[in-house]
Amino acid sequence: MSLLFYSILKYKTNIGSHPLNFTVSFTSNALPDTEPGSPLVGILGTGDFSRSLARRLVASGHQVVVGSRNPKRSAALFPDEAEVWLEAASQADIVFVALFPEHYSSLVELKQVLGGRVLVDVSNGLCLNQDGPSNAEQLADMFPESHVVKGFNTISAWALQSGPRDGSRQVFLCSDSSVAKASVSQLCRRMGFIPIDMGPLSASLEIENMPLYLFPSWKLPVLLSFALFIFFYLYNFIRDVLHPYVTSGKSAFYKMPIELVNVTLPCVALVMLTLVYVPGLCAAFLQLWWGTKYKRFPDFLDKWLIQRKQFGLCSFLCAALHMIYSLCLPMRKSARFTMLNQAFKQVKNGIEDSWVSEDVWRMELYVSVGIMAIGLLSLLAVTSLPSVANTVNWREFSFIQSSLGHCALFMATLHTCLFGWTRAFDAKQYHFYLPPTFLLVVIPPVSVLIFRSLLFLPCVALKLRKIRRGWEKTRHIRFTLHSPSRRPLVEEFSPRSYPHL
Amino acid sequence: MSLLFYSILKYKTNIGSHPLNFTVSFTSNALPDTEPGSPLVGILGTGDFSRSLARRLVASGHQVVVGSRNPKRSAALFPDEAEVWLEAASQADIVFVALFPEHYSSLVELKQVLGGRVLVDVSNGLCLNQDGPSNAEQLADMFPESHVVKGFNTISAWALQSGPRDGSRQVFLCSDSSVAKASVSQLCRRMGFIPIDMGPLSASLEIENMPLYLFPSWKLPVLLSFALFIFFYLYNFIRDVLHPYVTSGKSAFYKMPIELVNVTLPCVALVMLTLVYVPGLCAAFLQLWWGTKYKRFPDFLDKWLIQRKQFGLCSFLCAALHMIYSLCLPMRKSARFTMLNQAFKQVKNGIEDSWVSEDVWRMELYVSVGIMAIGLLSLLAVTSLPSVANTVNWREFSFIQSSLGHCALFMATLHTCLFGWTRAFDAKQYHFYLPPTFLLVVIPPVSVLIFRSLLFLPCVALKLRKIRRGWEKTRHIRFTLHSPSRRPLVEEFSPRSYPHL
Amino acid sequence: MSLLFYSILKYKTNIGSHPLNFTVSFTSNALPDTEPGSPLVGILGTGDFSRSLARRLVASGHQVVVGSRNPKRSAALFPDEAEVWLEAASQADIVFVALFPEHYSSLVELKQVLGGRVLVDVSNGLCLNQDGPSNAEQLADMFPESHVVKGFNTISAWALQSGPRDGSRQVFLCSDSSVAKASVSQLCRRMGFIPIDMGPLSASLEIENMPLYLFPSWKLPVLLSFALFIFFYLYNFIRDVLHPYVTSGKSAFYKMPIELVNVTLPCVALVMLTLVYVPGLCAAFLQLWWGTKYKRFPDFLDKWLIQRKQFGLCSFLCAALHMIYSLCLPMRKSARFTMLNQAFKQVKNGIEDSWVSEDVWRMELYVSVGIMAIGLLSLLAVTSLPSVANTVNWREFSFIQSSLGHCALFMATLHTCLFGWTRAFDAKQYHFYLPPTFLLVVIPPVSVLIFRSLLFLPCVALKLRKIRRGWEKTRHIRFTLHSPSRRPLVEEFSPRSYPHL
Repeated sequence: MSLLFYSILKYKTNIGSHPLNFTVSFTSNALPDTEPGSPLVGILGTGDFSRSLARRLVASGHQVVVGSRNPKRSAALFPDEAEVWLEAASQADIVFVALFPEHYSSLVELKQVLGGRVLVDVSNGLCLNQDGPSNAEQLADMFPESHVVKGFNTISAWALQSGPRDGSRQVFLCSDSSVAKASVSQLCRRMGFIPIDMGPLSASLEIENMPLYLFPSWKLPVLLSFALFIFFYLYNFIRDVLHPYVTSGKSAFYKMPIELVNVTLPCVALVMLTLVYVPGLCAAFLQLWWGTKYKRFPDFLDKWLIQRKQFGLCSFLCAALHMIYSLCLPMRKSARFTMLNQAFKQVKNGIEDSWVSEDVWRMELYVSVGIMAIGLLSLLAVTSLPSVANTVNWREFSFIQSSLGHCALFMATLHTCLFGWTRAFDAKQYHFYLPPTFLLVVIPPVSVLIFRSLLFLPCVALKLRKIRRGWEKTRHIRFTLHSPSRRPLVEEFSPRSYPHL
Repeated sequence: MSLLFYSILKYKTNIGSHPLNFTVSFTSNALPDTEPGSPLVGILGTGDFSRSLARRLVASGHQVVVGSRNPKRSAALFPDEAEVWLEAASQADIVFVALFPEHYSSLVELKQVLGGRVLVDVSNGLCLNQDGPSNAEQLADMFPESHVVKGFNTISAWALQSGPRDGSRQVFLCSDSSVAKASVSQLCRRMGFIPIDMGPLSASLEIENMPLYLFPSWKLPVLLSFALFIFFYLYNFIRDVLHPYVTSGKSAFYKMPIELVNVTLPCVALVMLTLVYVPGLCAAFLQLWWGTKYKRFPDFLDKWLIQRKQFGLCSFLCAALHMIYSLCLPMRKSARFTMLNQAFKQVKNGIEDSWVSEDVWRMELYVSVGIMAIGLLSLLAVTSLPSVANTVNWREFSFIQSSLGHCALFMATLHTCLFGWTRAFDAKQYHFYLPPTFLLVVIPPVSVLIFRSLLFLPCVALKLRKIRRGWEKTRHIRFTLHSPSRRPLVEEFSPRSYPHL
Repeated sequence: MSLLFYSILKYKTNIGSHPLNFTVSFTSNALPDTEPGSPLVGILGTGDFSRSLARRLVASGHQVVVGSRNPKRSAALFPDEAEVWLEAASQADIVFVALFPEHYSSLVELKQVLGGRVLVDVSNGLCLNQDGPSNAEQLADMFPESHVVKGFNTISAWALQSGPRDGSRQVFLCSDSSVAKASVSQLCRRMGFIPIDMGPLSASLEIENMPLYLFPSWKLPVLLSFALFIFFYLYNFIRDVLHPYVTSGKSAFYKMPIELVNVTLPCVALVMLTLVYVPGLCAAFLQLWWGTKYKRFPDFLDKWLIQRKQFGLCSFLCAALHMIYSLCLPMRKSARFTMLNQAFKQVKNGIEDSWVSEDVWRMELYVSVGIMAIGLLSLLAVTSLPSVANTVNWREFSFIQSSLGHCALFMATLHTCLFGWTRAFDAKQYHFYLPPTFLLVVIPPVSVLIFRSLLFLPCVALKLRKIRRGWEKTRHIRFTLHSPSRRPLVEEFSPRSYPHL
């Protein structure tokens, strides 16, 4: 039979010492001289992933045989190709199928050989697939005699090469054969990964979707921030630009790019920051109301509790931008011209000293408080970096996220109040009868702070603590648990993720 | 006997595929059908931790039986409850006791059943407990026939669920039975954690205190920063606010929120930054003096060497705030009024050009140098993030922390000197005969830089290097070692933690 | 024989419970009472590394015997010393040689004892050594009967103590005896490290060089940034300082520390940011041209693709500095004087309103766009932190790095164009016939954005995607692979490291 165009690639453990190169051999190589204790693993396909996988397997002391699919898929050469597959498949008990799903069909010839072997499906979908069947299930249908295990699709080729230094080391496995799953799990461990059992093959759809989610936990906070931004922007536009234009014909449209944005951002920041601490309050009061901690929170509250970190970071982003915008104000030509014209007026009117002590004090105060607020928020943001969060213990984490967090909320509220000063009671501030924004946004945080302080009342605090230590008002028992975290990016109910409770 | 109100909860390895739910069964279930190679683990208690632990155990291929304590602790039902415990306990060799210590007593009925089994105490204290006995020791007193192992208390329920992606993976174990310890260690490894042997059960007190420490390594640097801040703030208050008020009745109290803070922060920053490099110098000179590196440093020096990172970050925080405060200066109403009044004066006096070249140069220079200093400090701060520090090798780490660090110190000092300019020699600067602060704070860094440069003299540098390579002046030997790190948060003596040496 | 001055140090597993201390014993201790399942490991040398290693070994359940080299190397005492070595070496199969290479000679006496045992060389070089022989090879020459394994030199004493929480956990091993390598690999795993097989002992030179590299992947980007900075600085110096001085004798040298730097930095930032997206384009067009993805890119392109992250971070650093410098502008005395003089002029000329609408709009626009650009760049910078990058999946990573990245590039370009406004067509801007810098630096990003948009044309996009799914134009096959990553700091070809493709 013609042996043109096909190759068996064998990796020896000396892979490290000189670059690998695939040789297009014209004769089928002999079996690799397997050392004792270095099991043989087969890989079908020679893409980037296959190559990184091969390298990692060898680096963790395995022997690898790679069957290279002949890129040119002509009928004439098909037998040879099958031959290649055969070579690669017939030698190993665990065979990685590193092909694009659309090419699985090119393996049908191997039904017999692959029978009884463990096939690992590492493929990913192109887009979220909610209805199924998953690639792994399709593979299982093709090879009913083989034991199909889904896994490794969440590991990037890069993570495979660089090994465990690159953080995400969990490999989610599922299969209908617990024996196959066990052997692949062991392989995982040898490669330095942590196998996570996700149950039967029916879970493969979920596993294939994992790498396709786009910041699921960020969707709500980001959308909400945008909505708030647009609302407050329009609100301010009407008050600060439209009003003077309509009433006195003064054109203040130049304020749109910077000044309007700069009065809008803090509103968004403050509201978002408030929303970080609302769910914690709800949870506390619910537990007090129920008189037990063993009752599950309503879903929306759970989701909210889990996304507080994202809410907080959105708030921080807005606050930081607000800071930068404010710092830019004096730099602008407009500020310069205003100043010059004022100087001109002052000279014309012969005012020697235009100093207004109240204005000065107001600004000095709200600026300094604002800086403290942004300082505290930065601390919170830094400690929510994964690598930093991992170095603090439970008490430290809750101290920062809860105590310092409420401090920051208080500072931000104070900053807004000082900015408002007495102007809330000045009729001239109510353009078109619209109250100034600082008045609107200061209400939620103030109420949160009030309710929060209620929890510090001895009687309330004591009862809440008893409940959290397992005490129950009623003798009625309910056990509830949440489904185990399938999506690594979304946190789950756990004491650690509820520092503010 | 009445079988009301009790439940046995069994997790199968298909946990991943559908949400867990606790069924309150009225009959004792059969034993779980243990697969080969999936050992059975018992858990007493059904709190958050217990549920996360169960999930993790199952995910790493174990079978779990959970004994649910009946929340209503009425004498009438007690036998049933004991029955539950029995169920859960009698099936597993390793039994996790996930109860609050105050409920240990509810297990006394199980003395016989638990005899000879391994009890893992995962409890935490409520507050630092220095005198003991630890919860684990109390448990051991209750069950003299069982082998009590302390551990897992430093692992949060959240870390248990999310698995090794969440950084801190060390599980500190201690027990008087090395066999029990070994079997729990193996369990740890299977769950993807790293067991750390802390010795006999007497170490359990220390282990229970671990999650209760509140930034032990930050206490000194933070307190010191505060002390310095208060001192310099008062000092500046007297010079810049009180002095003009007393002498010429000018009220400059509006300076207190921003301007005073802004002249105080850089002082704190510079002193703290200097304190980062003092211990390294001391260590070097001590080693030169002793003529050996095998002699232990005095305790205070060790502590200091270990806390340099915290000193540096405090300094960075102050410097960053100083930057923000400075950038806020021109934005303030006060700056605006001053400017307008000056304009008025200038026009009144008919001065066409008020340009003062020296002032301009002075400011341009110290501002630009200051920016470079803060830039370098930011680099240092970023590289001290755990995840970044882990990606650099030993030479890169010392290059950044030592070379760039001294660069930053030099820049900051230059920034201060340029700010001072010739005013140190201007009598008018000495309000109440108090020297200006820039004069006070510039002395320590300058002397540090001078001593540091001494270490670069060939003769000194060569000798120091010889010593660091193990050479010793005297034939007198002393071997000393430090107690092994019990508290993971506090670094310990090690070349890596002494980059500046 | 004299037994003066030597010591055998034995660690028991109770190491955790009380501080270690080396006792200088005058009689050789008995063998440690080895527990079952706790293998014995020997360490020769008592430096920092040796002590940390001992602690770690014990913490992971081994017994350790340390042979302490007598610091005073006098001929008279040598026999004793050999005796010590003997004690330590004769008891363990695996012996760590934790000496400085210059002291290897002091082991020659042990040739017989060490014969057949595994010697682990943990030494590091003092400086990069490209020619060899490596320390490990020298050791192997000294002890031809022993099996020398190179490894652990990349692990700092600190990482050994603090264990796997500290990221870099890969231990690179190489040896000519695969059996020795296997046993050391197993030891690694027990200690919580990940052994990486690097092949035969000839790889030891490379392994010894690993900790000595100084930011290899940063060299090119940093140097390039500096070169660009110097070029643009001089260019601006001629246009903005020299030109007015030569033509109208106006001295603007005070601009050199801040204003010149501030117009130079954005040029560097924009060019560097452009260079991040050029290689991705080249790769895409090459693949389209070749009609296959199985052809290797030219080396320079691979290197470039790998260093995009560094290019991006350099660009971000410059952009951030540019922001700070700009914010400092209004603070300066020079700005203040200019303002006052302008006020004087305005009053003198009796201009009531000096407002120039166009200038105002121009500045408002380019400032706000600039802030958005820096905001996006900060997001990119944060997500390139290792710990953050590890928490995002493949789609999220490419969304941020590619989509948001191009957004940032577009914003930065727009910022420059708006800054330029119509001045590009103003003859007066061409001092010495030199075009303004914003004109020079805007060309590359614009062309990159145009070419990039070409890739979005359906026909092109479709073909490119087919190619990336494995389709090939020709039947000609070429398999190429890159040498496996030896240097952990440098990324390697892999889908993950090519998000922009």
